[in-house]
Amino acid sequence: MYSVTVSHHLMVAHSLVGAVFGPAQRLHGATFVVEAELRRETIDAAGIVCDIGRALDLLKVVLGDLDYHNLDELVEFRGRNTTTEFLAAEIHRLRVVLRENPVAWAAYDAPLG
Amino acid sequence: MYSVTVSHHLMVAHSLVGAVFGPAQRLHGATFVVEAELRRETIDAAGIVCDIGRALDLLKVVLGDLDYHNLDELVEFRGRNTTTEFLAAEIHRLRVVLRENPVAWAAYDAPLG
Amino acid sequence: MYSVTVSHHLMVAHSLVGAVFGPAQRLHGATFVVEAELRRETIDAAGIVCDIGRALDLLKVVLGDLDYHNLDELVEFRGRNTTTEFLAAEIHRLRVVLRENPVAWAAYDAPLG
Amino acid sequence: MYSVTVSHHLMVAHSLVGAVFGPAQRLHGATFVVEAELRRETIDAAGIVCDIGRALDLLKVVLGDLDYHNLDELVEFRGRNTTTEFLAAEIHRLRVVLRENPVAWAAYDAPLG
Amino acid sequence: MYSVTVSHHLMVAHSLVGAVFGPAQRLHGATFVVEAELRRETIDAAGIVCDIGRALDLLKVVLGDLDYHNLDELVEFRGRNTTTEFLAAEIHRLRVVLRENPVAWAAYDAPLG
Amino acid sequence: MYSVTVSHHLMVAHSLVGAVFGPAQRLHGATFVVEAELRRETIDAAGIVCDIGRALDLLKVVLGDLDYHNLDELVEFRGRNTTTEFLAAEIHRLRVVLRENPVAWAAYDAPLG
Repeated sequence: MYSVTVSHHLMVAHSLVGAVFGPAQRLHGATFVVEAELRRETIDAAGIVCDIGRALDLLKVVLGDLDYHNLDELVEFRGRNTTTEFLAAEIHRLRVVLRENPVAWAAYDAPLG
Repeated sequence: MYSVTVSHHLMVAHSLVGAVFGPAQRLHGATFVVEAELRRETIDAAGIVCDIGRALDLLKVVLGDLDYHNLDELVEFRGRNTTTEFLAAEIHRLRVVLRENPVAWAAYDAPLG
Repeated sequence: MYSVTVSHHLMVAHSLVGAVFGPAQRLHGATFVVEAELRRETIDAAGIVCDIGRALDLLKVVLGDLDYHNLDELVEFRGRNTTTEFLAAEIHRLRVVLRENPVAWAAYDAPLG
Repeated sequence: MYSVTVSHHLMVAHSLVGAVFGPAQRLHGATFVVEAELRRETIDAAGIVCDIGRALDLLKVVLGDLDYHNLDELVEFRGRNTTTEFLAAEIHRLRVVLRENPVAWAAYDAPLG
Repeated sequence: MYSVTVSHHLMVAHSLVGAVFGPAQRLHGATFVVEAELRRETIDAAGIVCDIGRALDLLKVVLGDLDYHNLDELVEFRGRNTTTEFLAAEIHRLRVVLRENPVAWAAYDAPLG
Repeated sequence: MYSVTVSHHLMVAHSLVGAVFGPAQRLHGATFVVEAELRRETIDAAGIVCDIGRALDLLKVVLGDLDYHNLDELVEFRGRNTTTEFLAAEIHRLRVVLRENPVAWAAYDAPLG
C-alpha cells in the first residue's frame, strides 16, 4: 500500500454545545494543522500515487472555505458541534488528522464512498 | 548567560482591525504555542535559573486568563489589535515566542522593568 | 473510524538486562513522550469520540505512577525488562506510541479486552 | 501488535520525467527523513521487537548507498522515476515514511515477502 | 524588541568544492527549511512588525528563484560554494535559519544595510 | 554573524538535591536533545563556519562520556546538581540548548575562553 500525505492549516473561531466541553463552550479558536493522506495499492506509470502539487492545491481549496471564519456562523454546520473529530470527517479525503494543539489531535479514516 | 524556557498553549478567538489584515479582519481563531524564556547570568546554589515547575505553573496562570476566550470581548484589550506581536509583549516575562501556525510566529524580547 | 490522541511525557530511570542492550544495561534514563490514541466507529451526540480533557487527565494519572521513578525499583515491573515496547503495552489504552529520542520510538496497538 | 520505528535521513539530487512534475522535471534535490517501522505480534524474552541499535545501523547502511548521490546516475534506478513513493518502496523494511518537506510526505506499507 | 518569523522551504541540487566536504563533493541535494525573522523596536499603529502575509509572499518569491534548481548551474553562484551558511546570507532579510536535515542547520544574522 | 548548529541526544539517570526539585529529588532520568551552535563573524574560503561533519562527531564524543550513565555516579559531577542549566554549561561549545521534554528546555551561551 502506497500513500501520500499533504498538510496545510486553517485558523478558525467556534464554540461547542454541551457541559462536557467546559470552557470550550465559550467562543474561542484554534489553528488546525490538517494532514490529508491518500492511499493506493499501486503507483502509476509516472511512479506516483497522485500529483502532490494538485493534492496540496485541492486541500488548500477545501480549507479555504473555512479559513479565517467563525464556524458557528457557517450555514453548513448549523446545529452541529464542530469538534476536531467532526471536522476531520468533513474535510476527509481518505485519512485526515487535525492537530489542534501540541497535546491533542483527532483523525477520521474511511474509504471514499 | 543561562536560560530556561517553558512552553504552554492557548486557544482563542479574535478579529483584527485594518485593511492590512485581509481575511483576518473577520472573527477567526488561533492556537498559540507560547514559549517563555527566562535568563540569568549565573545559576543559584541549587544549580538552576529558576524552579521550572513554578515557571510552568506561572505561565499556565498567565495564559489561563486568556485561554478559551474571544479576545475581542476582553476589557484589557479594548481598542487594541491583539496581533501575535502584541500578545507576545503582553504575556512577556523576558523573551516570549508565540507560534500561531507552522509557517508564522512572533516574539517579544526585553529586560523586565 | 474516528480517533482522538492525547499526549504527555514522563522522565524515568531504568536499566535493561541482556547483552543485546549494550550500554543500556547500565542504569540510565529517558524522557518518554507518550501518545495515546482512542478509536471509535462513530462519534456521540456531542460530536466527540471522548472528552479530550478527561482523556488527557487520565493519561496524566497513569503516567504519574511512573514519572520521576527508577523503574528498576517498582514492584510491578520486577523481573521484567522495561523496554519502550513493554512500556507501550503497559500504558496502552488503545494505541500507544512512546518516543524515546528523536530517532527511535515504539508502539503497541490492540483492542481493549 | 508491537512496533519499533527508527529514523535517519539522506540528501540526494534527482529529476523526474513527466509533465505532471512541473518544475521538478529539472535537476533538483531533497533531504528525505526516513522512518522505518518494524512490527511483531509479540516481544521476545528480552522484551523487544528487535535490537533498536542494530535496526538503526541497518537503516543507515541501506540509506548510505543512496546518500549524497544524484539518483539519476544510479544504475539500479535507470528508467525509473525516483519519486518519494517509489523510494519508500525501495527502502521499505515493513512500513517506511519519507518526509520530503514540511508539507508533503509519502509512505509504503507491505508485509516482507 | 519585537520580531516576526515566516518560514518556507526549497528543494535544490548542488555540489561543494573542497576535501573538507567529503561525500558532499558529489552532486547531491537538500530540502532547506528557511526561517526569516524580521525585527523592530516598536510595532506600528495596527499592532504589527510587518504584514505577515506579505512577508511570507516575499520569502516565497526570493526562494522561488532557487527552488527546483541545480545551484551549480546558476550564474549568480558561479565560483562560490553554496553551503548552508552562504545561502543563509544570500537569502537573508534580517535573521535567516536554514535547516538542512534534522541534526544540522545554519544561520546568518545582520542588520539590513 | 554566521552560525552552524548540530544536534544529538543522550539518555541519562540522575537525581537532584534540594526541596525545590520536588519529585525530581528521586532517582529518575531524561532524554536530553542537545543543540550546539557555533558562531563566527565570517565564513572561510570554503564557505563554511566549520566542518559540520566534524562538529557533529565532536558533539557525539562529548556526549558519549555521559550517555547511558547515572550522572550521580560520575566523579566529575560529585557534589553538583546536574540540572539542565548546569549540563548546558558543561557541554557548552558556544551556545547549547538542552531540551528535556516537550515543554521545558535550558540553554547556556558564552564566548569560548
